[in-house]
Amino acid sequence: MIDLNQMGEKAAGVKYRLQAATAMEKNKVLLEAAKALTDEAEREQILKANAEDIRRGEANGMHPGMLDRLRLDEKRMEAVAEGLRQIAELEDPIGEVLDQFIPENGLHITKVRVPIGVIGIIYESRPNVTVDAFGLCFKAGNVVILKGGSDAICSNIAIASCLRRVLAKCGMPEDVLQLIEDTDRAVAAEFMKLNQYVDLLIPRGGAGLIRTVVENSTIPVIETGTGNCHIFVDEDADLDKALPIIINAKTQRIGVCNACESLVIHEKIREAFLPRLAEALKTHQVEMRADAAVREYIPEAEEATEEDFGKEYLDYIISMKTVAGVEEAISHINRYNTHHSDAIITENKEHAQQFLKGVDSACVYVNASTRFTDGFEFGFGAEIGISTQKLHARGPMGLKELTSYKYTIVGNGEVRG
Amino acid sequence: MIDLNQMGEKAAGVKYRLQAATAMEKNKVLLEAAKALTDEAEREQILKANAEDIRRGEANGMHPGMLDRLRLDEKRMEAVAEGLRQIAELEDPIGEVLDQFIPENGLHITKVRVPIGVIGIIYESRPNVTVDAFGLCFKAGNVVILKGGSDAICSNIAIASCLRRVLAKCGMPEDVLQLIEDTDRAVAAEFMKLNQYVDLLIPRGGAGLIRTVVENSTIPVIETGTGNCHIFVDEDADLDKALPIIINAKTQRIGVCNACESLVIHEKIREAFLPRLAEALKTHQVEMRADAAVREYIPEAEEATEEDFGKEYLDYIISMKTVAGVEEAISHINRYNTHHSDAIITENKEHAQQFLKGVDSACVYVNASTRFTDGFEFGFGAEIGISTQKLHARGPMGLKELTSYKYTIVGNGEVRG
Repeated sequence: MIDLNQMGEKAAGVKYRLQAATAMEKNKVLLEAAKALTDEAEREQILKANAEDIRRGEANGMHPGMLDRLRLDEKRMEAVAEGLRQIAELEDPIGEVLDQFIPENGLHITKVRVPIGVIGIIYESRPNVTVDAFGLCFKAGNVVILKGGSDAICSNIAIASCLRRVLAKCGMPEDVLQLIEDTDRAVAAEFMKLNQYVDLLIPRGGAGLIRTVVENSTIPVIETGTGNCHIFVDEDADLDKALPIIINAKTQRIGVCNACESLVIHEKIREAFLPRLAEALKTHQVEMRADAAVREYIPEAEEATEEDFGKEYLDYIISMKTVAGVEEAISHINRYNTHHSDAIITENKEHAQQFLKGVDSACVYVNASTRFTDGFEFGFGAEIGISTQKLHARGPMGLKELTSYKYTIVGNGEVRG
Repeated sequence: MIDLNQMGEKAAGVKYRLQAATAMEKNKVLLEAAKALTDEAEREQILKANAEDIRRGEANGMHPGMLDRLRLDEKRMEAVAEGLRQIAELEDPIGEVLDQFIPENGLHITKVRVPIGVIGIIYESRPNVTVDAFGLCFKAGNVVILKGGSDAICSNIAIASCLRRVLAKCGMPEDVLQLIEDTDRAVAAEFMKLNQYVDLLIPRGGAGLIRTVVENSTIPVIETGTGNCHIFVDEDADLDKALPIIINAKTQRIGVCNACESLVIHEKIREAFLPRLAEALKTHQVEMRADAAVREYIPEAEEATEEDFGKEYLDYIISMKTVAGVEEAISHINRYNTHHSDAIITENKEHAQQFLKGVDSACVYVNASTRFTDGFEFGFGAEIGISTQKLHARGPMGLKELTSYKYTIVGNGEVRG
């Protein structure tokens, strides 16, 4: 079995070197890595390794959707390289002065942004995460230890080894990126207890993976990515806005965490809206599961169970619930959502304000699609995930969310009285 | 056994009411609570309950220092009440706009400070924590569930019941403060898994308690309060500054996390400094444990073991280590400290900068005592603890550190392309 403590020691041994790196040094690595990943010889090695993963996946009867996530090709390699170039262009967050003050004791206190230290990422089958996660963590001055899924192990080994060669070539210790090559579950379990070396663990994957990490990790975790997102169509909604927003949020990409999974409908607009809505949803092959009040107007909808309201379908299915007003909508949403992204469609400013204040989610929208919850859309340039917890970071996590801070205090012989 | 899920349900049932409370409503509760805790009849009840705890402690042979921490009297009750009045005077952090921006998609995005939700506090024998923790969490809009130690259970029940009466009297749901009255360890263990209801768990107490919580909690934890703080006396130190800073940091209060536990000495100043230092430490009854190079000049010092360098003594003991320069000092400190507070004494600006950048601690000092790491000293007005981890909050945690944020996004029918 792989020696995780040894990997931790290596991470500890290089982290302060990385923390002291200049933006220029870090950007050079990122640009060189982008070049290497699209260099013909390197790319061929990676694609060959990926083909091996694909072959194994096919032999194991992997679902076509999963196979697609696993697959790399020239175009996708170009996209991950482009991602690194974009990260290189982002401002280096490290060293930013967040606050400066002189309290009554006369000390000069400065709050400075610093890297977190060592970040662990546990992810599933997409090998591009190997590149993205490294790029973001590295630019924010963090050593990264990656634990990818067994499905993508050959691809991940090839990518990590390419990136480590680039690091060494640029004069940076290659151990600032380490991949756990052992895909045994016992290794993952041990990794989650590596507090002594790892400051933060980010699981990237489905709800099952995230639950496992939350329940077993003794390292601080940031939960990402489960989204049971709601759209509430208020009595004062502009129905011509509501319809395209709902269709976009539900159907533009069904497998993502910011897709809409549930509609909350003001009872007064049932007659005016539900037949149009049903029509549009049917056109997009969306199956409806609704309460009795909705089904009066959409008889073809299936009956929604309690479980439906709490479900992240990630599929062409939507649940529908009727309410008597904004307050009931807020209560329903806060009860069933995953605190990710929820929207109200209304022209009533008071209702909009009530909703923005009352809904307990990372992102609360008025008259826009929940699909905008995304680091690129927010202008962060990139993202490591969408946090659905309240500690440290909430919502899209970019470079700044991968940092911590410290206080530097300058005195002249002060002692405490 | 107590039903923690029921307590969690109650917390969930009132948290949005508290989140919507105005600063005026919250301050009224805090001032009324201060009044109640110093009201003669209420105070007598609390002191009577405390006397019961003290009696039990004495019967169990409790250490005098522990008995002192447990004991309440009129003066201490006045002090906790004054603490609440100070919290009432602090600005309400909730609703603060942290950022506003319009990315390329044209949406109006506002980052707003919001409460965390439900905070659990697990603490040991000091009953004043019941008041302090409630006051801070409440002002930041958070429901609090308290789990105090068995030693102080009678005091805690009396205090919580007084505070809950005040809440009810002020028209606030009394369940925004709940005390777990069952002191069974199994209950504590179950409490640490109450993810569904509790957003954050803060242990306040010794290293053992904190380790137990970190290892067993599935709720996000903020580690507070272990401090193996170092002072490095550089070759360019002004020794007349160094001496009082060291004596202050070591002896002003020995049992606190920001007290100095270890000295790092530049080898070049051994002759000039160590005899004076030994003299001063002896005057203050501080036992010395040192490496060979120090002991050449302080022969009466005991030999320091590897274990000494990593130890938070919380006692009249100090470890001493010689180094050849700033870089070695930084490496030694980063290896043995608890990332709490460390200081350099130097008149050399370059060395000071190197130290401020290189030492990986919440608070890094130049020419000042580590004892200043404190919410009041930092001007935060109050503190719930000193975080020694890098997620969410680092260093002294005041009101702002007990908050999260959310994004509110206003559009006009935008959908994602």
